[in-house]
Amino acid sequence: MHIDINADMGESFGLYRMGNDEAFMQFITSANVACGFHAGDSSEMRKTVELAKEHGVQVGAHPGLPDRQGFGRREMNCSVQEIYDDVMYQVGALNAFVQAAGLRLHHVKPHGSLYGMANRRPEVAEAICRAILDVDRQLYFYTMRTGAVGQVAERMGVRVIYELYGDLDYDARGNLVITRQHDPHKPQDVAHKVLRMVGRNRVRATDGSEIDIEGSSVCLHSDTPGAVDILKAVHEALRGAGYTLAAPPL
Amino acid sequence: MHIDINADMGESFGLYRMGNDEAFMQFITSANVACGFHAGDSSEMRKTVELAKEHGVQVGAHPGLPDRQGFGRREMNCSVQEIYDDVMYQVGALNAFVQAAGLRLHHVKPHGSLYGMANRRPEVAEAICRAILDVDRQLYFYTMRTGAVGQVAERMGVRVIYELYGDLDYDARGNLVITRQHDPHKPQDVAHKVLRMVGRNRVRATDGSEIDIEGSSVCLHSDTPGAVDILKAVHEALRGAGYTLAAPPL
Amino acid sequence: MHIDINADMGESFGLYRMGNDEAFMQFITSANVACGFHAGDSSEMRKTVELAKEHGVQVGAHPGLPDRQGFGRREMNCSVQEIYDDVMYQVGALNAFVQAAGLRLHHVKPHGSLYGMANRRPEVAEAICRAILDVDRQLYFYTMRTGAVGQVAERMGVRVIYELYGDLDYDARGNLVITRQHDPHKPQDVAHKVLRMVGRNRVRATDGSEIDIEGSSVCLHSDTPGAVDILKAVHEALRGAGYTLAAPPL
Amino acid sequence: MHIDINADMGESFGLYRMGNDEAFMQFITSANVACGFHAGDSSEMRKTVELAKEHGVQVGAHPGLPDRQGFGRREMNCSVQEIYDDVMYQVGALNAFVQAAGLRLHHVKPHGSLYGMANRRPEVAEAICRAILDVDRQLYFYTMRTGAVGQVAERMGVRVIYELYGDLDYDARGNLVITRQHDPHKPQDVAHKVLRMVGRNRVRATDGSEIDIEGSSVCLHSDTPGAVDILKAVHEALRGAGYTLAAPPL
Repeated sequence: MHIDINADMGESFGLYRMGNDEAFMQFITSANVACGFHAGDSSEMRKTVELAKEHGVQVGAHPGLPDRQGFGRREMNCSVQEIYDDVMYQVGALNAFVQAAGLRLHHVKPHGSLYGMANRRPEVAEAICRAILDVDRQLYFYTMRTGAVGQVAERMGVRVIYELYGDLDYDARGNLVITRQHDPHKPQDVAHKVLRMVGRNRVRATDGSEIDIEGSSVCLHSDTPGAVDILKAVHEALRGAGYTLAAPPL
Repeated sequence: MHIDINADMGESFGLYRMGNDEAFMQFITSANVACGFHAGDSSEMRKTVELAKEHGVQVGAHPGLPDRQGFGRREMNCSVQEIYDDVMYQVGALNAFVQAAGLRLHHVKPHGSLYGMANRRPEVAEAICRAILDVDRQLYFYTMRTGAVGQVAERMGVRVIYELYGDLDYDARGNLVITRQHDPHKPQDVAHKVLRMVGRNRVRATDGSEIDIEGSSVCLHSDTPGAVDILKAVHEALRGAGYTLAAPPL
Repeated sequence: MHIDINADMGESFGLYRMGNDEAFMQFITSANVACGFHAGDSSEMRKTVELAKEHGVQVGAHPGLPDRQGFGRREMNCSVQEIYDDVMYQVGALNAFVQAAGLRLHHVKPHGSLYGMANRRPEVAEAICRAILDVDRQLYFYTMRTGAVGQVAERMGVRVIYELYGDLDYDARGNLVITRQHDPHKPQDVAHKVLRMVGRNRVRATDGSEIDIEGSSVCLHSDTPGAVDILKAVHEALRGAGYTLAAPPL
Repeated sequence: MHIDINADMGESFGLYRMGNDEAFMQFITSANVACGFHAGDSSEMRKTVELAKEHGVQVGAHPGLPDRQGFGRREMNCSVQEIYDDVMYQVGALNAFVQAAGLRLHHVKPHGSLYGMANRRPEVAEAICRAILDVDRQLYFYTMRTGAVGQVAERMGVRVIYELYGDLDYDARGNLVITRQHDPHKPQDVAHKVLRMVGRNRVRATDGSEIDIEGSSVCLHSDTPGAVDILKAVHEALRGAGYTLAAPPL
């Protein structure tokens, strides 16, 4: 039984620091690397790819909307063509560093509002899928089981990896409850929740109900309070339960 | 005898139009496509690659400094590492569109002040050459015979194509005389000058002296007055003199 | 009877040219100057203010969304606070040039999607009005009679000038029909339409019906085909009909 | 005897945090607020002005080069006119927030490479001084005694406040030793050094020699290790020595 742990990496920009990539890379198996539109820059991308390589972590692209000030979280009414073009541009830019490092790009995971738009508007999901197929048909698309993205991707022949969120809550419909400020979580609580999601495909929603959940990659955030401790706890709990931590093979 | 004609293409940005790519693509054999830092954007890059493909024109990357307002013409004191990273990023971004179109990237030509910095500071030329080799060892580096770039590139094993400028003047040392406003040229004068440069390796400098010149690719600008007429005249003169117009083979 | 003619000015950016400000300034009475977010830049702003001063044209601010690539025409889900802050920033930046020229800022007119958002979401209109009042309570707000903006502005004590669009069509509800490509118009047709709007408060909508219309400032665009000829025709028709062309007094 | 303590404030950007403005504002008497080019953004500017007002801290503008990725520390070959325009734009933008808060802008202090360029090229210093005079002839120009800026400013009739740097070292010529990484300092050492600079106009240079130094405003950085402790120590030492901490009066 293989489980992947992914996290958003490379979100620093110029002198601005964000996250704790050095610590996180030790415990994750795949990284979603910001591509310079909503976060990151060319130097950060190179360094993040090198760091991932050093730790044997698979590198995915984490493209976002062209809005650094809003960190890609302010929906923008881009045309479908512009979204395709912007995803191609960002994935291509990251790919240069990945290939120069002797690696192969592993997956694409849209960031923030780009992901939200894809889940509500199938034509946005299609644009992203077309970009993925145009770059490399073997690339995985990381997304959640709920929402339109997965169906669109599967229909178009894109390989999909479904994600489970350890440090965010789900509502009764299986949608993530996004809050501006991440609430603090106890590492053991998150680890316990992840084990139930992975082993029993169940999670308790915010209204107390039990819902079905499915996925083979656990996403954790590096900007939650105590993020590294949570990550370590999940990492150890999964290994303790007999899972092999590994990104899906290309 | 083969001669290449190259021009900077894809410099429009959003609603802002620049140059006359549709007309130019009919008469050139290789295109230097702006990569979204000093000019161009992701949509423009895709469209320019498609237009080049339609006309059988080879596509090169034209990376510049991260300064759209200054059109990459204001020197910036970037570190050598930043220059490597920014060139990788831009070439990679363009490469996504090139490969999606079923083409292969042909060359790299640094734009404006990035080129100027490379010619004065060998470590900048080295950074660009490292990026070229890290993307694809077969890529050509388009540059002038004068200046440090060619020597650095050849020493590092980068394939170099030397350029001749039809619509700019040379000083007695073989350096280009860069003016803010391009002076108008008569098409036949430019065509005649190009034929002499190509056939006799000679050009008259601004001080009246005759200087040696060497190159196999003629660069013409699309923003000079009467640019299309000049391009046509050069195109026809070269063909009339028996040259085969073609980009260097990959 | 006074009528104002306004136009968007200062939309060029770096080397990119847009519009024909030199010609337009001769025939308008107030200018909406781009403030460097969706178009324009600091140098363009200074030059446009100087040009307006030279022609006795009143200077207004034309703030937009922070999206140069989309020319402020891609709606962005900015918070109301961010909109207030961005309008303050842009109006303040322009005001420095206006005051240095010995002039006084005349009005504010939101651009593109910022205007569209204000018309659909009263809280956005309120944010813009608060910014206007915080800069100078005498500033006019240029807007259309239809839509929520005017009501919000009047309720908050902002002085409003209603606009009439000469070169755009109205639908039966009095809303503008916005097209990507501006259709060509005959100068005399536009002049005739403007005279009817100004003199009889009537205009023919796209469905053929006659609708009521109200305003004291005619807006014309500099990027329509034959824009200068249209502007001249409107200018002369209004003067020929006995109107005094002048911006509303501060 | 009055002494001012100034610090760069408002350098955060979007979600990116920098410095510790809340703590610093309690102990400084004037703030140099980033204006959205090299750091800061419109929302950050408003919040920083409000925070300064709350603590009775005078607000100055801290304009920089248009290079957020390089934090305004990569010299750019802007024209003198562009520098004037960019300073006007930034100072004007900040001024909108300052005036809306019922305050009056206090000073201008160029950031990073813009300051460096002004000190080496008198025409750059002149451009900045012209902008200051064009905004408000009472504005102070914060700068160091060494370098060309002070002389240019005084000759042009700009009011100058000379600065002393507590947490940076001086070389034997009185120039600051700028390092990428700020070295840690003991609070009491900095406080002692500041007292000597202020009281005896002397400081020990990096080569061990004693040099003359002159100034009435102490600059401290919020991104040095232990910055708040250093600031507190300087604050208390100056007050303990009988100085009144206050910004120069407008």
